[in-house]
Formats: sequence, structure tokens, C-alpha cells
Amino acid sequence: MNHYDVIVIGCGAGGYNTAIRAAQLGFSVACIERASNVGGTGIRTGCIPSRLLLHTSEIYDLASKGKNAALGVDCAPALNLMQMMAYKTAAVEQMSKSIHKLLRKHGVALIYGNALLAAAGQVIVRKADGSQQTLSGTSVVIATGSEPVPLPFASFDHTRILHSADALSLDRVPRHLAIIGAGAVGVELGSIWRRLGSRITLIERHDRICHWLDSDVTATLERSLKRQGIDIRLSSNAIGIDKHSNSVSIQLRTAESTEITTLDADMALVAIGRRPLTTGLNLANLGIQADTEGALPQQGPMTNGLGIWVVGDAATGPMLMSKAEEEAIACAERIAGLPGFVNYSSIPYVLYTSPEVAVIGKTEDELREAGAAYRVGYCSLAASARAAICGTSEGFVKLLVDSGTNLIAGAHLVGPGAADLISQVTIAMEASMICEDFARICHPYPVLSEALRQAAMAAGGWMMHA
Amino acid sequence: MNHYDVIVIGCGAGGYNTAIRAAQLGFSVACIERASNVGGTGIRTGCIPSRLLLHTSEIYDLASKGKNAALGVDCAPALNLMQMMAYKTAAVEQMSKSIHKLLRKHGVALIYGNALLAAAGQVIVRKADGSQQTLSGTSVVIATGSEPVPLPFASFDHTRILHSADALSLDRVPRHLAIIGAGAVGVELGSIWRRLGSRITLIERHDRICHWLDSDVTATLERSLKRQGIDIRLSSNAIGIDKHSNSVSIQLRTAESTEITTLDADMALVAIGRRPLTTGLNLANLGIQADTEGALPQQGPMTNGLGIWVVGDAATGPMLMSKAEEEAIACAERIAGLPGFVNYSSIPYVLYTSPEVAVIGKTEDELREAGAAYRVGYCSLAASARAAICGTSEGFVKLLVDSGTNLIAGAHLVGPGAADLISQVTIAMEASMICEDFARICHPYPVLSEALRQAAMAAGGWMMHA
Repeated sequence: MNHYDVIVIGCGAGGYNTAIRAAQLGFSVACIERASNVGGTGIRTGCIPSRLLLHTSEIYDLASKGKNAALGVDCAPALNLMQMMAYKTAAVEQMSKSIHKLLRKHGVALIYGNALLAAAGQVIVRKADGSQQTLSGTSVVIATGSEPVPLPFASFDHTRILHSADALSLDRVPRHLAIIGAGAVGVELGSIWRRLGSRITLIERHDRICHWLDSDVTATLERSLKRQGIDIRLSSNAIGIDKHSNSVSIQLRTAESTEITTLDADMALVAIGRRPLTTGLNLANLGIQADTEGALPQQGPMTNGLGIWVVGDAATGPMLMSKAEEEAIACAERIAGLPGFVNYSSIPYVLYTSPEVAVIGKTEDELREAGAAYRVGYCSLAASARAAICGTSEGFVKLLVDSGTNLIAGAHLVGPGAADLISQVTIAMEASMICEDFARICHPYPVLSEALRQAAMAAGGWMMHA
Repeated sequence: MNHYDVIVIGCGAGGYNTAIRAAQLGFSVACIERASNVGGTGIRTGCIPSRLLLHTSEIYDLASKGKNAALGVDCAPALNLMQMMAYKTAAVEQMSKSIHKLLRKHGVALIYGNALLAAAGQVIVRKADGSQQTLSGTSVVIATGSEPVPLPFASFDHTRILHSADALSLDRVPRHLAIIGAGAVGVELGSIWRRLGSRITLIERHDRICHWLDSDVTATLERSLKRQGIDIRLSSNAIGIDKHSNSVSIQLRTAESTEITTLDADMALVAIGRRPLTTGLNLANLGIQADTEGALPQQGPMTNGLGIWVVGDAATGPMLMSKAEEEAIACAERIAGLPGFVNYSSIPYVLYTSPEVAVIGKTEDELREAGAAYRVGYCSLAASARAAICGTSEGFVKLLVDSGTNLIAGAHLVGPGAADLISQVTIAMEASMICEDFARICHPYPVLSEALRQAAMAAGGWMMHA
């Protein structure tokens, strides 16, 4: 069969979720993948391998820093990096396989090759063996994802100048890893290699790391990363890089000075962002324009009558697997004529650092700039029995509550389990639960969730446990 | 000052929370504690020390079973039980101290001694030095807690026949610990000592462990505990016990047979339940009757005109710190004339075993017996990327959804983080969020919470990831 109701180009989180949901809704679906396996950046080279190494490196770190000895578990651990990487690779392959199985279960045709749009509803797939296949589709979904942005003055060589995927597959622990860009990738990968023994220098052009986050969050995280031994150079621009046989020299200029300093490191990880991967699809010839970053307008048929849709990193908006998944579901449902919808203000954002960070909604700066009337409900994890059991008091819950409506406008969590805790706020926000009711939720004892309750009490002026 | 607006007898979770909330509401408050420090069973001898040892023993277990080696962290850990117990004790003392500080911050007078009610509004405190103090109070709150129930045929000797507090303070790892009663205390303490190297025999008179839980939960937990090497004897009654110098012999009779078998062990932990501690208060003379278990009717002034209230384990209902805390808040608010309220159907229940268990609302058996029309939304953790990262696929989310209203009637979670995840369901239930909307919540990726979403999708017939 060469005709499908829905043809999805790309089999990452945006693509496979669109394909599965479309198949559930009764459509015949083909999914085209240019890589050798399914899963995309999220499963194969980004999120998942990163979370795996964050998990294993944290276990190593806890054991090696004597933190376990304080709990009565004496051990002197040895790092087996080859095994750690093998575990990561096996887990990634397992997840690719699961997605493969899901696609098969839902009857999705999986086709490997490079796709381009010959015309509206006509997709040509060029395969690795040189052959070519033409498909026709009533709807075509572009889910081609994104790629790391290189430095303007030096391309990735994967040995001295690395992108995130390179830095998740090193076969030895670098003595000194310089990281250009202190966003999510920078702080997460810096954390991994720091725990495994590297010296880390984090170079950031803004005056704080992850500058779009609430400033209380970045202040706490900066303090913690420094305490972990990560050297953070703020307001610093990398303006040049020299490669040597076993090292790199990075030229840095700070915002305040014209003086150029040089930083030597074994290698440089470039983590200055990602860009949509929308070239090579022949979109311009169909009259479809990407923005200057390469992103396509999100949601809905792109051009009247063409039946072309776009989801995930290729579309405008934050490059998150969760956002891609939401768009995928909404896209399939809208193709089916259902009222698919993505509430972009209810998409959480997470850093899997230690302490973990999870946020949703507005930052305090945003509310202040908008002139909004709001109250702050703040609870330090020093008041949490469960955090004490985990041996930490680092972190907090900060709720921002609209003074007029008593609805939660934003939540900023730092501490263990934050990524799972944030969903409690998402649910309360989606349910339009007022903060007073959120403060009345009964949690088990002892759990980290209690800090959410105490913060909600604090917003109402009656925090009981601090 | 000898008169207080509110006198609270007992400074455990029920007592200190009542005292703090009453003080917040502007009352003068005294809190009387018969033990040598504040915190009660929950902080000092129950929940908290148990959770501390569950946490530390799990770290030991993961390291010693080669599970860390599979992740690339080689280590052969040695157990330092003395250090583990010292860590536990220090953390408990720290938490007692925090409560002390909270009481002082809120201006609560803390008085050590044994209290009795001489008359309505008149409390006599007998102190350790033999002196006696009489207080008058407009309202008196009984928050005297509970104590472990002994076997009918053998009292606790704290050496061979232990209660839960004894079993949380052993100075060596028993070779063989027999546990009579497979409720929360039995399975949690059995887990601790199994991880630390003991042979464990768990004796339960019902035909399953924790028999009040959903049967899918107990089946999974039983399987897991057996895989961990715990010997579970179901439908077995302990009918006698002989103490020897270094061991005990327990006589067992199964439900099906009249034959008596004998089980030898180093010691026996008796975990057949707890009973309210309401004797010695002189309540009968005030015309206040406890039920046959010793529990006082919960909520509200006990007798018209007397102004006596009761919260926590001394009151009827489940003996949980979270329930005590809810009653405490409601009690203080009702004393203040506010509409204090405890929604008993929204109190979660947790077992801090591995895998962790957390439940709320109805079990499937309860719904079936009530003839309710319901749908089941089930998601195995084998479908969870985050569980895979943690190296487990054991566990599930099971949502029970009312077919008529689409509201969640019950949730049964088994797996890592369950105790924090359950609050997402509590919030949805309290907000009357229908299951379709719960299935639309956007979670970060990858988190355990996604299994809740997939289960909600399953209840609607469109689970995407399994």
C-alpha cells in the first residue's frame, strides 16, 4: 500500500506519539525515520541517556563521597565507566525496542529513509540502499526534531569539540571538561562528569545559569553546583577556540571587560542550544516558510488545503519531549476532527540536576514585571521530614498565588523528586483549585509532597511546620 | 499562668499539630507530654525511625546485591549497624528538637508529666519529681496516642518478644526474626532486617498480607517480598510461644489443619496491631466511655458542655500520622468556631516497602461488593521509562473509575515513589476532576507520574504506551 491516511516524518517523541494516537483513532499510518532506529533525540541521544547517566553517576557520587558511610553503609566504590556506558546503551536499545513494538501493535508502517515532500500529500523516501519509495498521504505530519547548534567559529569534531550526544558517550572521564552554555544540557552533563571525577568549567554569557528560571531557583542551584565543585563563569562569552592534539584553548571575554582570557581544557562541550531540523524537506517549494531559527509555526494545518502539520522540536516553542507528546496527541485528534488542544502554560520544565528542579507557570520576575498582585508561599526543605530522611535539607517549594483569584500562577520546586512533585501543581492548576484547597490536601507521612502543602499554607499565612 | 484556652494532652502528631494550629488561631495553649521528649510514636518510635532504617537498609541492599555493579559502580559494602542506628537516633532527636522549636515559636507551653482529668476543664499533671500541677482549660484535647498490642499469651520482654520500637533498636542483626502479623509494621520491619541479612518468617492469620488492601496490590507485594527471600506463612495462627535463653519457639496452627507446628527463631516481633492509650485519664468518672478497643469517638466535643475533644490514635479510625494531623487541624479550627472538617475518604495509606505501596479510596473488592459500575485503568511500570532508569519494572498503577460519573473512586499504586505519587490522585479526587481530564495532564519526561496518566488513558480505552 502506498497510500496512508497519515504520514509522519520522524519517529521521535513527536512522531511516534502522533503515529500511535492517529492509529488509535482509526487511521492508516506510516512513520518515516531517517536514523537507524526509532526514538529520536529524546530516547536515543538526549533525555534518556542523560537521565540514565545522571542516575548512575549519582549512585556513584553518594557512595564515593562518604555519604553512605554516614548512614552505616561503608564502601569504597570503583567506577566502571565501560559498564556504566554499556548499561546506558542497553537501556536505550530496550526503549527503542519498546517503541518499535508499540508501533507494530498499533499497525503503524515503519519506513527507514530520508523523506521529502514532492508535493502536498506526496512524500518521497530515499532509502539507505539507494532505492526510493513514493507515498501519498491525506495528512502529512512533520516531526523531524532538532539538532545541536554549533559555535559560529568552530564546528563539532566529536573529539575535542563535542555536542551533547558526544558527551554522553565518552569512553574515559575527562580531566577537565569545559562546557559552553549553562542551560539544561550544560548543567545536567556538567553534573554527570563532575560526579564521575572531571573538573568542570561552566561558561555562561548571561549573568546567571538557566536565566529563564525563577531567580530563587537559579541562586540555589548555582550555590549547589559550586558546592559540588563546578566552576561557574558567568557573563562570559566564548569568542574563539583553538584545538591542540590533546586539548582545547577557549578564548573568553567577560561582559564587563574587553580583556580576553584563555581557558585550557581536555575538551569543550558546546551546549548553546538546539535548532529545528526542517531543511531538506522541500518545504520552501510548497510555499511553507520556516522562521529564522528554522522552526515551523506550531499547530494546525500549515497552509490551507495542504494538510501539512508540524509537531515537536520542528515547531516553535520549548524543545521538550512532553511538549512534543502533547502536540502529537492534539495533532492526531485534530486530524480526526476532534478538538485537540495543547495548554502551553501547563507544560512543566525540569532539570535533572541534584538538587532536581521542576517549575510550571510564571516566575516571580514575570509577575512583578506584569504588575500582578500575588502572594508567595515558600517552604524550605529544611522543614521536610522526608528530605531529612534522604539526608538533605537543600531546596524549597515556592508557590506564586494570584491575590485576586487565589489560583496558583506558578510553582518553583528545588529538591529530591521535584520532577514528580510538580505534577501535583499542574493538576491543581488544570482543575482551577484555589491555593486554600491545595493547602488542605492530606498527604501520607512522611513524604516530600508535604512541602507543597506547607508552602500553600504559607501563602495563606498559616504554615504550621516552619 | 494556670489557665489556658486549650490544653492538649499528648505531644505526638495529633497533639503538637493541635497545639500549633490552636496557637495560630490566637489561643493560649499548653501541651502535656508524658514521655521525656516530644514527637510521640510517629517521630520517636514508629514512622520516622522505621523510614530512616528503610532508607539506609535499601542503600545497603542495592550496594550489596550487585545491583550497583550492573550500573557501573563496583563496591562491596560493609554494614556498620552501630553507625546506622546512630544516624537514626540523631535524626530522630533532630526532629524532636524541630517540634520543640515550633512549639516555642508558637508560644505553646510545654509541660512534662502524666495528665489526668480531675473534672471537665481541670487537668492535673503529675511530674517526674513527684510534684503536681493543676491547670484549667476552656478546651481539653486528648491526643494520647496508642501502644502496641501484646500477644494474649505472652507479654513483651523487649529481648525475645519484641514490639515495633524494640525491633527498630536492635544492636545486632538477628539470624532469624519471626514476625507475628503481616500488616504495615510486619512487612516494613521485615523488609529492613531482611535487607540487613536476617532470615525472616512472616506469620499472618489471614490468607494474604495486609488483607485490607486491594488484592492486586497484596499479590504483587507478596511476590516481591518472597523474591527478596522473606518466608511468608499465610492463614497461620501463633497460639503459643516458649522462650529459651537465646531463642524462642512459636507454636503455629494453620487454618486448614489442627496440627501444631513449631517455628524456632532468635526472637519474635509481635506486630498484631496497636490500641488507643486512653486509660489513666479518669475519663470514666467524667462519664466518657471508650469503645472496647479503648478508642474514643472521633471529632467534636465529646460530651455536651464538657469541652473535651479527641484526635489521633486515641480516636477511632486508622492509626496514621496524616489522619492525626488532619484531625488536629480540624479540632483547633472547630474550637475557634471555624468549619473544621476531615474528609476521611481522602486519607491515603502507604507501605514504605520495596516496592512502595500507596493507596487511596476504594479497593476493587469493595466496589464489586457494593455492586458499583466501574472501569479499571491499569498501567504496569514495565511501560515506564523512569522506572526503567531506576532499574525496575516491578509495580503498577491501578485506577478505579466510576462508570457513571467518570470520577476516580480509588487508586492503588505499587512502585518507586508511590507515596508521593498518590497525592496526584488525592488532588484530582478532592477537585472532582474526571478521569478523562486526569489523562490529559502534561507531565515532565521521564517521570514516574506518566504511569498515572497512562492508567487514566487505559480507563478511557486509549493507553498509548503499553
